[in-house]
Amino acid sequence: MDIAFVLYPNMTALDLVGPYDVLSPGPDVTSHFVAATLDPVPAGSAMRIVPTTTFDTLDRADVIVVPGGEPYEVLAEGTVAAWLRKVHPTATWTTSVCTGSTLLASAGVLEGKRATTHWALRDLLASLGAEVSTDRVVRDGSVITGAGVSAGIDMALTLAGILWGDVFAQGVQLAIEYDPEPPYDSGSVEKASPEVVDLVRGLVANEFGAGRSEGVKA
Amino acid sequence: MDIAFVLYPNMTALDLVGPYDVLSPGPDVTSHFVAATLDPVPAGSAMRIVPTTTFDTLDRADVIVVPGGEPYEVLAEGTVAAWLRKVHPTATWTTSVCTGSTLLASAGVLEGKRATTHWALRDLLASLGAEVSTDRVVRDGSVITGAGVSAGIDMALTLAGILWGDVFAQGVQLAIEYDPEPPYDSGSVEKASPEVVDLVRGLVANEFGAGRSEGVKA
Repeated sequence: MDIAFVLYPNMTALDLVGPYDVLSPGPDVTSHFVAATLDPVPAGSAMRIVPTTTFDTLDRADVIVVPGGEPYEVLAEGTVAAWLRKVHPTATWTTSVCTGSTLLASAGVLEGKRATTHWALRDLLASLGAEVSTDRVVRDGSVITGAGVSAGIDMALTLAGILWGDVFAQGVQLAIEYDPEPPYDSGSVEKASPEVVDLVRGLVANEFGAGRSEGVKA
Repeated sequence: MDIAFVLYPNMTALDLVGPYDVLSPGPDVTSHFVAATLDPVPAGSAMRIVPTTTFDTLDRADVIVVPGGEPYEVLAEGTVAAWLRKVHPTATWTTSVCTGSTLLASAGVLEGKRATTHWALRDLLASLGAEVSTDRVVRDGSVITGAGVSAGIDMALTLAGILWGDVFAQGVQLAIEYDPEPPYDSGSVEKASPEVVDLVRGLVANEFGAGRSEGVKA
């Protein structure tokens, strides 16, 4: 089973690595890190990840995982969406984490489908034609999308259960000791205080460039 | 504030990336990925991460984060422990995820201290002289340890609250939408079924080489 993890500049590392550590130990899995070139791809201030293959080379996959990140540049640039148009028809499962769903939408993968994304960017996903859900993990046909960043772990465990059965998926959950005890209860926009929500909306607007959506190819 | 994330071969990617995505957005943080050389470091079957600096070059840090992974080779090899002996005295906080605590122990950092690790490797940590706790996050003085793999997110949010206050840490939790909804309730050895526990004990013994502890430098 070939699993293609998509890499692009300014993706969020945890969006990639949550699903990678859940899915890559699966039976007979070959994991591919696919990017525009073989040059290391930046994810945050210090991290650079080395691709194993390129969009030109990898033309099929059984499973596709698209992480989120700063969405506007990668949407406008179009290379990831072009690869998805080519490879999604070959895949049994196409998945995303966080704003990765906006890339699926821009490639036409979410036409008429329900999908989720980071809570602060639901409007962007809706503007690209998807039917936006506020659920943490959404399955619609062969497409599974996860909400923001850490939801990739829940999304991938859901897929592991589908691919390899409940006992294997539970084993992965135990192997990564995923029995969360967050020190705060502030992980959703419904649970966080207004002060915290305002803080994060400001950070997201600053980091992702509110109003830059005019460059997006839908 | 300089945060040193330690890289070594066959570390677990999520142990590194959970704390990285929680701590690196902190105010005035410079994140360093420190390894034996500048060559990309393997983490699992497909991932290679590029270091930003080396053990010889980086001789101080405000915060140290040591991920877990296959523990026996890195313990026997000794380079990470030697670096920890040099840099731990310069740090305000020294932290670990999963079997990263065995590296702290082998460097003498856990002498007389309570600490936690992956549930399947508690005996190894005890054999290295630490007082082993089964808690998910353990703080003893300036040392904070997290349990297996995904516990690094909880450990890092705890540290973020200490470093930058509750509102900032809650903001990070909301930014990564860390409101877990695992599809199973199998994330601890107390909650998983005996069948699942046996499956994972077999995988861990196979992957980490049970009985190879004779090579460990304590």
